[in-house]
Amino acid sequence: MKIIDISWPISKATTGYKDRSVINVDEIKNFGRDGVRETNIHLSSHSGTHIDAPSHFLKEGKTIDEIHLDRFVGDCIILDMTTCAERITRDCLMAHDDQIAAGSIVLLRTSNSDLSPTDKFNPHFVYLEASGAQYLTEKKIKAVGIDYLGIEHSQPGHPTHETLMNGDVIVIEGLRLGHVQKGNYFFVCLPLNMIGLEAAPARAILMSK
Amino acid sequence: MKIIDISWPISKATTGYKDRSVINVDEIKNFGRDGVRETNIHLSSHSGTHIDAPSHFLKEGKTIDEIHLDRFVGDCIILDMTTCAERITRDCLMAHDDQIAAGSIVLLRTSNSDLSPTDKFNPHFVYLEASGAQYLTEKKIKAVGIDYLGIEHSQPGHPTHETLMNGDVIVIEGLRLGHVQKGNYFFVCLPLNMIGLEAAPARAILMSK
Repeated sequence: MKIIDISWPISKATTGYKDRSVINVDEIKNFGRDGVRETNIHLSSHSGTHIDAPSHFLKEGKTIDEIHLDRFVGDCIILDMTTCAERITRDCLMAHDDQIAAGSIVLLRTSNSDLSPTDKFNPHFVYLEASGAQYLTEKKIKAVGIDYLGIEHSQPGHPTHETLMNGDVIVIEGLRLGHVQKGNYFFVCLPLNMIGLEAAPARAILMSK
Repeated sequence: MKIIDISWPISKATTGYKDRSVINVDEIKNFGRDGVRETNIHLSSHSGTHIDAPSHFLKEGKTIDEIHLDRFVGDCIILDMTTCAERITRDCLMAHDDQIAAGSIVLLRTSNSDLSPTDKFNPHFVYLEASGAQYLTEKKIKAVGIDYLGIEHSQPGHPTHETLMNGDVIVIEGLRLGHVQKGNYFFVCLPLNMIGLEAAPARAILMSK
């Protein structure tokens, strides 16, 4: 079994959404003085690789701890979307229609993965257009992941998020997919067990034989 | 496939090590005012379920990002240690000698799991004595997990941590095992991808057929 890490590295230097940097690490004990190292961590629920729960955008949406972990674990397909220059539309996805199975997890590999995880925030990142989100809900997938800190921009009212969340498709943001090939894998994404929050930082891996 | 969550719930109410509570969540955006929810999270690298990297106690030890994830993923056995009232010694573990395989992950289920995850810190938690740690390094397991926020107390110089870390056995603390049966499982524990830290919060699950 091979494990491939597809998680965003987290440090003070990590790209912040819209450059709102909220990641900090405070050294509480250091080896020279205390003989032990300890650190406090400060970050956003949306820092790096993370899962958005429906309560992020829906008034009565479930919080992250109310979603069973089997929604973030299972068969996945990585689709090569690098030919979609600005946004991933219904048409972009329909070209892969026979590869997108109900109940599966779909990861979108775009040119976003060419960006360094410590670059300045890129407001023009490739995003999933509302039409693509609508298509994925019709396909009844269980989750969709993308290789940037957000899954949409430039769409008033956040229709991509709302379509996915109302359609019971989980949103995974902040994946790193530049080093992996398109194709089928077993995916495991485990968010911190945060009670009552609208999102949580997570670690995501691919497993292959 | 069945997924069993064995992670400590994280909230402001979560038990802190020695009652040094460092977990906080700040509401940055709320639905009524902003139409979206966002939260900042503050916690220790050792809050709730977490993995200690060798650099926690060893001067030149590896940090959490330097350890390959396959050390926290793989076949595991949950041992029933509830008959060991105060500490888990070499003798306690030797009673299970034929069940402890080289390269496997050993999880110690003790009476600690009877405590609520929001109880006051219990300084008398059941711990892995240095003799038990020495035994596990001799067995060449790849990781050991326990159902409390620490794996040792009352041992000057932290010999359990140092023995395990020098013996290349990863330490997983803060598991919740009261709801699972002893026996064999597939274990996945994924820490946040924290760069350069001596530990990281993690989510841990068991997978069974």
